[in-house]
Amino acid sequence: MSRLLNSLGTTEELADLFSDASVLSAMLAFESALARAQARLGMIPQSAADAIARAAVPEGFDAADIAREARQSASLVIPVIDVLRARAADEGRFVHVGCTTQDVMDSALMLLLDRARDVMGADHARLAESLRRLSNAHADTITVARTLLQPAMATTFGYKAAVWYAMIHRSWIRIAGTVFPLQFGGAAGTLAAYGDQAQPLTQELSKELGLPMSIAPWHTQRDALAAFVAHCGIYVASLGKMARDIALLMQAEVGEVAETGGGSSAMPGKRNPSGCVIVLAAATRMPSLVASYLTGMIQEHERAAGGWQAEWQTLPEVVQTSGSALAAATGVIGGLTVFADRMRANLGARDANLGCAEQFRRRLLEDPCR
Amino acid sequence: MSRLLNSLGTTEELADLFSDASVLSAMLAFESALARAQARLGMIPQSAADAIARAAVPEGFDAADIAREARQSASLVIPVIDVLRARAADEGRFVHVGCTTQDVMDSALMLLLDRARDVMGADHARLAESLRRLSNAHADTITVARTLLQPAMATTFGYKAAVWYAMIHRSWIRIAGTVFPLQFGGAAGTLAAYGDQAQPLTQELSKELGLPMSIAPWHTQRDALAAFVAHCGIYVASLGKMARDIALLMQAEVGEVAETGGGSSAMPGKRNPSGCVIVLAAATRMPSLVASYLTGMIQEHERAAGGWQAEWQTLPEVVQTSGSALAAATGVIGGLTVFADRMRANLGARDANLGCAEQFRRRLLEDPCR
Amino acid sequence: MSRLLNSLGTTEELADLFSDASVLSAMLAFESALARAQARLGMIPQSAADAIARAAVPEGFDAADIAREARQSASLVIPVIDVLRARAADEGRFVHVGCTTQDVMDSALMLLLDRARDVMGADHARLAESLRRLSNAHADTITVARTLLQPAMATTFGYKAAVWYAMIHRSWIRIAGTVFPLQFGGAAGTLAAYGDQAQPLTQELSKELGLPMSIAPWHTQRDALAAFVAHCGIYVASLGKMARDIALLMQAEVGEVAETGGGSSAMPGKRNPSGCVIVLAAATRMPSLVASYLTGMIQEHERAAGGWQAEWQTLPEVVQTSGSALAAATGVIGGLTVFADRMRANLGARDANLGCAEQFRRRLLEDPCR
Amino acid sequence: MSRLLNSLGTTEELADLFSDASVLSAMLAFESALARAQARLGMIPQSAADAIARAAVPEGFDAADIAREARQSASLVIPVIDVLRARAADEGRFVHVGCTTQDVMDSALMLLLDRARDVMGADHARLAESLRRLSNAHADTITVARTLLQPAMATTFGYKAAVWYAMIHRSWIRIAGTVFPLQFGGAAGTLAAYGDQAQPLTQELSKELGLPMSIAPWHTQRDALAAFVAHCGIYVASLGKMARDIALLMQAEVGEVAETGGGSSAMPGKRNPSGCVIVLAAATRMPSLVASYLTGMIQEHERAAGGWQAEWQTLPEVVQTSGSALAAATGVIGGLTVFADRMRANLGARDANLGCAEQFRRRLLEDPCR
Repeated sequence: MSRLLNSLGTTEELADLFSDASVLSAMLAFESALARAQARLGMIPQSAADAIARAAVPEGFDAADIAREARQSASLVIPVIDVLRARAADEGRFVHVGCTTQDVMDSALMLLLDRARDVMGADHARLAESLRRLSNAHADTITVARTLLQPAMATTFGYKAAVWYAMIHRSWIRIAGTVFPLQFGGAAGTLAAYGDQAQPLTQELSKELGLPMSIAPWHTQRDALAAFVAHCGIYVASLGKMARDIALLMQAEVGEVAETGGGSSAMPGKRNPSGCVIVLAAATRMPSLVASYLTGMIQEHERAAGGWQAEWQTLPEVVQTSGSALAAATGVIGGLTVFADRMRANLGARDANLGCAEQFRRRLLEDPCR
Repeated sequence: MSRLLNSLGTTEELADLFSDASVLSAMLAFESALARAQARLGMIPQSAADAIARAAVPEGFDAADIAREARQSASLVIPVIDVLRARAADEGRFVHVGCTTQDVMDSALMLLLDRARDVMGADHARLAESLRRLSNAHADTITVARTLLQPAMATTFGYKAAVWYAMIHRSWIRIAGTVFPLQFGGAAGTLAAYGDQAQPLTQELSKELGLPMSIAPWHTQRDALAAFVAHCGIYVASLGKMARDIALLMQAEVGEVAETGGGSSAMPGKRNPSGCVIVLAAATRMPSLVASYLTGMIQEHERAAGGWQAEWQTLPEVVQTSGSALAAATGVIGGLTVFADRMRANLGARDANLGCAEQFRRRLLEDPCR
Repeated sequence: MSRLLNSLGTTEELADLFSDASVLSAMLAFESALARAQARLGMIPQSAADAIARAAVPEGFDAADIAREARQSASLVIPVIDVLRARAADEGRFVHVGCTTQDVMDSALMLLLDRARDVMGADHARLAESLRRLSNAHADTITVARTLLQPAMATTFGYKAAVWYAMIHRSWIRIAGTVFPLQFGGAAGTLAAYGDQAQPLTQELSKELGLPMSIAPWHTQRDALAAFVAHCGIYVASLGKMARDIALLMQAEVGEVAETGGGSSAMPGKRNPSGCVIVLAAATRMPSLVASYLTGMIQEHERAAGGWQAEWQTLPEVVQTSGSALAAATGVIGGLTVFADRMRANLGARDANLGCAEQFRRRLLEDPCR
Repeated sequence: MSRLLNSLGTTEELADLFSDASVLSAMLAFESALARAQARLGMIPQSAADAIARAAVPEGFDAADIAREARQSASLVIPVIDVLRARAADEGRFVHVGCTTQDVMDSALMLLLDRARDVMGADHARLAESLRRLSNAHADTITVARTLLQPAMATTFGYKAAVWYAMIHRSWIRIAGTVFPLQFGGAAGTLAAYGDQAQPLTQELSKELGLPMSIAPWHTQRDALAAFVAHCGIYVASLGKMARDIALLMQAEVGEVAETGGGSSAMPGKRNPSGCVIVLAAATRMPSLVASYLTGMIQEHERAAGGWQAEWQTLPEVVQTSGSALAAATGVIGGLTVFADRMRANLGARDANLGCAEQFRRRLLEDPCR
């Protein structure tokens, strides 16, 4: 996919994380770690592990070639291993011993998802802090609550911002709870090729890669990843609710807030809710990405024919889309201008009874997960 | 929707739970509880609460009329209140005081979802127990693991069943964690109409309805419900993975298991994987129901124009579809016949090294959520 | 599904069309027509056809019983035939001869879809006419075009209405083109049970039911129905675009149009865009219904295990959701008030150059499908 | 998105078509054609058109820079124009005169979609021809029809192949009917900046780009594109039905067909249905891409805030996913081995009455769209 057409659907950092070089690095890190672990346990010569480590650098691989061959075997791992074996020359036969393609792909993706989540976490922390500050700053800013797009009664902008904060923060907490474990099961999920070494090898590999062990291989048990994907969907929907609100409040006729925004190619003076647009575009696409993942979960027997392979695209898209929406939302809130006078004016002659607005606002900021 | 065309998409118990009478009961229970709570706090006369309680019985309401009027106002609550007020005669003006439609609808749905989850929980317990028993009974039953729909290596049927159990049980644990709270915010989510009584009234109402209090109204904060919906989607997908496996294993040419199944209108002797069909039909529909819910989460300001109303159909469909799949899966596993000889025969001359199959099997049964 | 919770997702007429009685009638009409056709060709005695016709009335069937049994066999047809056979007593063995469940279900649904499309067609004609009138009435009403929710330049409200008309009308033309054919293939799609009578029997049955013949049975060829479903999705999305525009124009701060609308249970004076809400709720749900149908299209061999059965819910929901959105949109446009002064005021000092607005408007009304 | 992770989701040719260089070329082709057309009509100097043409070559543009700036303005066109203006130096002010970003993006995408469809058309012709040949070669090959994954009755493999052909070919005919028109409307869809030159300029631009004129700008009328997207979804679902059938028939225990397939990294002798896997992965993802497009159709007023921008990713993914599935299916059918003896053996003692199988087969090949 063109970097241009995908420009609103990722960030530079996340695009780099899912670049060919980075994906290859993660796959090669697995093969290299496996060889090191096997050497440590005396399963293969140390010299082989060394040779494999030397060969396992992305520079020696041609992504276009590998992609072409992947289309023959429906496996990205086979062509990578073929090149790795050739590059490791005589020690090539010690590459990928006893292992299966899904162990490599899944573990490599876990490495990348874990890093992607860290990137998102930093942005989320910034966004959450900005929202808390925004809410506190406008604890007393009276504005009009709107139901079904019509003015209803008085509320405060601080409460409104606290609602945004609480939804978004709770949604992040769900994402933060995901564990990205090592995948290691061999051809049939039994590690049959390793005999008594299966358990120690798994431990070594887990340590090498910094990926936690699961209680068993999870080749066709995708529920934990599905929860991660769904939680990303909920996170983006929460951002989307906020972005829709802001884009509506920013309408010239309403004029209650303004994001820094972007211009127009046709009308230089025009100010657009550009950050909100990026969030809303992401929110348009995420529900379907979640559905796509769930559809692929019907994975036959011990390795799926189609459902698993579909994930290779869905997972990176899910985190890049989420990360892009998050970065845009962070920009929107960081630079938001609030027009309190206009809010007051739009409330008009309506009763300014604020009820429990402040109480609810404080509770939402204090511990939204309670 | 016709009970007939929906026959595979619900169970009798769940269909009753979301029948007109049951939905009306839940809505009226809210109005009645509100009046009782208000009377207790001296906000309305006790005689009014009594009159409202007497009037608030589904028998006095015509669902067809209410549905017709709901299409005028896009509100199901307005026509219900109109009838309730009329039925409460002079005390009618004490109906629904200070409250808003979404308080009623959301709280009524929470009551129903909570009961539906209980129904599902009982079925899940049965299914989980059957799966554990199946796995234990076949700890030593050697069978062939299949990857990409081709035979790969040896495994045990007990391990296969443990994988089903673990996915399904973990997925249930996510569902079991959902809290279905009271919705109570009034027109703008501030409870402005109640003054100092807002907090005590919320507590009374919560007690009356047996719905826990949330930290604040959640009119447009749908993330927790979205997580419930997504977790139902993951649960059904887990059932779907098992059902696909079983339907494949039941193919005449494979012949490794058989469900009790159903017959054919054209060929009386034929045995079909009927339970699996119901699960797989549900698994076809659930990802889209999840996507539908996520799409509707972009809820404008303090009450959405469209996104919220779409939930009235999606939420009941989500639990009925899940419950239907669960009931069918429970039947399939409860009546499953396993043909161990055929499994051994299909393994053929392949190496019968089982590796860690038994170790993984036991771990998956012990604590799949670890 | 409760009529109440589904109240915004259907119309009374369409709900009746997919009621148990109506669905049963359509299924029984098939069995009855098959018997008549077979009698005419001398395949079964005329007395049998007469007995079957007498027995084939919905009144003799208990929908709850049938639904319960359908959950055993994953077939709605088997329990219906069982009762029909019993009711036809001695002639019962001439019921459903040589036929298969999918022939009955698909043909019955085609009868219902065809009638549902007629119902929608009448509403569409009204809507299209209202939109043309609206556009013509406001050919000269200057208003502000908005891009990214910000005012851009001048346009006319008549052009805006013509855009709505053109999208919606083109989308209808796609729906109008669908043919709902007879399904008739027997157990394996070969009509093997009928020998030389297969072709004449198909013709007679087609005539009896008023359903056109297809070139071959289409048990697992669902592409034409999928196109119908997708076209309904596009139609509703077109209505949704219009409803969003109108709900936005109706915001108090914009105030350019008003639908008759509905009130609020909390604030009696408030006017809500109730019709738009119904359309937007439908537009929230339709994309997922389309995805659900497409997912179910992966139908195995000569009859699917899950994908087909999922359609029994999806197809009726698709037309009822579409019909409901259409009826609501018809109400919105039929009762729309336009505030031309406010439009002019919102344009403000912007250049009122209308460019080709009128030319485009006329072209869109003349022949939007060109 | 990494070329590696996307390897199964595109083909080399389509990946090139949607590369940064190709996307930039298409956008620059629009700006260049606009300048040429304006020069021809005397609206800008010929020297300006020449300078713009010289500057409008992708080599002068840095895709990474443009993507970064696009994230600021939510517009890909603004940064491209900025560079183009700078590169055209003094004549830069004649770039993009009177035009709007959506004119450029949509028209550029139409150029690319049109070429992508041509690429797919060539593959489809090959696939269709292979399927016809396969069906004719096996007109008399008796096999077993299967319903609900259980053997039912006799049919011919030629009829089965004809069903695949008919679905797929009809689905292609729907795709082939799409027109990809020029987008040209200016800031508000009125071409207001061009006065009397609007119409001739549109004609010149249409000729220059080889894109047909539409009756009016279609900035927020996305129904025709939505139909294209949905028809691609139906096409891939049709391929998916065939791929599922083949993957099932290729199971070792069934053994009726074999695709050339790919190997396994763990078990070198194993043969996998690799082509079918690619098709089925595409079929897993397509329904959601269609839903994503439909969701985005609710485009506000004269340019959407989110729904339109989401298309930049969805449209290229739709055609690349479709093209990838099509290329894989073409490979599968082109290299399919049929084991007629095994088919006969799997039929076993079942009645071999073929009914109308041959008649239906011939009709499906002759004119499946009738």
